[in-house]
Amino acid sequence: MAVAVHAREEKSPPKASLDRLSALLQDDMKRVNALILERMRSPVALIPQLAGHIIAAGGKRLRPMLTLATSRLCGYRGDRHVALAAAVEFIHTATLLHDDVVDDSNLRRGLATANAVWGNKASVLVGDFLFSRAFELMVEDGALPVLSILSRASAVIAEGEVLQLVTSNDVATTEAAYLEVINAKTAQLFAAASRIGAVVAARSAVEEEALESFGRNLGIAFQLIDDMLDYSAQQSELGKSVGDDFRDGKITLPVVLALRAGDEREREFWRRTLEESEQHDGDLEQAIELMRRHGTLAATLERAREYGAAARRALATFRDSPERQALDEVIEFCLERGY
Amino acid sequence: MAVAVHAREEKSPPKASLDRLSALLQDDMKRVNALILERMRSPVALIPQLAGHIIAAGGKRLRPMLTLATSRLCGYRGDRHVALAAAVEFIHTATLLHDDVVDDSNLRRGLATANAVWGNKASVLVGDFLFSRAFELMVEDGALPVLSILSRASAVIAEGEVLQLVTSNDVATTEAAYLEVINAKTAQLFAAASRIGAVVAARSAVEEEALESFGRNLGIAFQLIDDMLDYSAQQSELGKSVGDDFRDGKITLPVVLALRAGDEREREFWRRTLEESEQHDGDLEQAIELMRRHGTLAATLERAREYGAAARRALATFRDSPERQALDEVIEFCLERGY
Repeated sequence: MAVAVHAREEKSPPKASLDRLSALLQDDMKRVNALILERMRSPVALIPQLAGHIIAAGGKRLRPMLTLATSRLCGYRGDRHVALAAAVEFIHTATLLHDDVVDDSNLRRGLATANAVWGNKASVLVGDFLFSRAFELMVEDGALPVLSILSRASAVIAEGEVLQLVTSNDVATTEAAYLEVINAKTAQLFAAASRIGAVVAARSAVEEEALESFGRNLGIAFQLIDDMLDYSAQQSELGKSVGDDFRDGKITLPVVLALRAGDEREREFWRRTLEESEQHDGDLEQAIELMRRHGTLAATLERAREYGAAARRALATFRDSPERQALDEVIEFCLERGY
Repeated sequence: MAVAVHAREEKSPPKASLDRLSALLQDDMKRVNALILERMRSPVALIPQLAGHIIAAGGKRLRPMLTLATSRLCGYRGDRHVALAAAVEFIHTATLLHDDVVDDSNLRRGLATANAVWGNKASVLVGDFLFSRAFELMVEDGALPVLSILSRASAVIAEGEVLQLVTSNDVATTEAAYLEVINAKTAQLFAAASRIGAVVAARSAVEEEALESFGRNLGIAFQLIDDMLDYSAQQSELGKSVGDDFRDGKITLPVVLALRAGDEREREFWRRTLEESEQHDGDLEQAIELMRRHGTLAATLERAREYGAAARRALATFRDSPERQALDEVIEFCLERGY
């Protein structure tokens, strides 16, 4: 694992990408993007301005692509997956807007955050608007099972965000509590976005469960890598500020493991910096040094790989197809961000 | 009209109350309250704590009572209205939590606001949670027309809140723009809550429209009185801080009318206090004095009465019943808060 982390430092080009998936879903994604633009319209000009800022900033559109790809994987040939993918992206965007307010973030995907440009108030309200629009799209689709999956996911996401807020600055946070947070705040939407594919294609409960498992494990792997990168990425690659989690006092897995492995003096360091939020120049570097000493970044990557493997096993229950191969590559892509 | 405002100052006891409606809906409301408590539960303890604070603070439960009463008015004898009334209250509560963050409010219904106690972050996230719970309740009910009415209402409410934010501190705001704001941020949910009654009772489109009109006009009247009280109530009656709107630079009808009637020196006063947010001791008193001089508080009350009369006409299309009488009294109650 240490080797893998070193390989990353040598900046070997990533092997996997989202290219295959993007190519496969090109036409569908065009329609999703058009629908997103159409549905964020409002006579209140600030709404499309602000929403457009975060949506145009791009991001990978990973979650709506999961809905499109799993629908195709399940042999679905209709149109409904387009609106549902847009709904998934709206829920995600609403969450991001509120997240950035909660975290006081100034940078996302290399651009100023909406709250930094338009203020917290507008971000909260436009988030609410997009969230409502997501539900309008689902209601137009008219499938109660989909509405049920996504309204449940939204509640769990909010629950996870509150739990993260509560565990922030608490160095007694356990690995189990951390996993509960990322399972709720990140993996739940990956799972829901993927499960919907089986639902629109009217496939069996077994296939629904397999896609839920694929999405959930992928989501956990994705967040583990994200939390690792917050301490190890080059700022230019990350598109957000390195050390954000540290400054926010978030107790992520690299910290939990470093706390567990460290001696009393180290634990005192974590208490001062994260629990009492007393941070000085050089503290972030010291934190990274402690993580490297105890191999907690490598251990986090290893955990991510295990979840990636579980996602791959869930996918393997479907017969081979271009969609399955592309989704396999999504798993690799998410993991390789960490190499 | 000036007489009416004076009568208020003499503190004549209000004639109308919600007592008749509360008595009529007593059993249903008990079930709504039990369901609200059940559905705001979460393993994350902060959620029921914070949600319980704002929900237990009481308020009048006016919006869920509208759903219950209109259902009964339409002859509905089933159970579905209970869950839908709880959903309406959750949407309202989520909006209040986000509102208080947006307005930096410290006091609501005579108690410290949730954001003042637990911070803005928790209020944003618990608002999201309650909003999701509202949709879960509607999805369990399973009626797409209801989901459509309430998801649309939620989007319009958010749109209205953004519009209010945009027009804040803008003394060029017209009466039409002000009406658009209160129509969206307040009247839309009154209208939706009332319309649902006809939907669960499977009544005709004409009756749906009549209840929509009743709710919408009642909501506008309610908000007009609210905006008037912000300049004329006794703090102890209002349960929030008198002058909040003034301090926030909100351009409500009493201000719009005073701006229109005032001379250049007065307009300069409004520009300084509301547009440039430069407020000194005595400015609120001066604002109230200008409103009284031009009779804009009385004019606002008069407008509210007109909307109240429209609400009454919409109700009159239903045959007489205890429910209709109780709803008529709700209109009176909303108006008499302003006497």
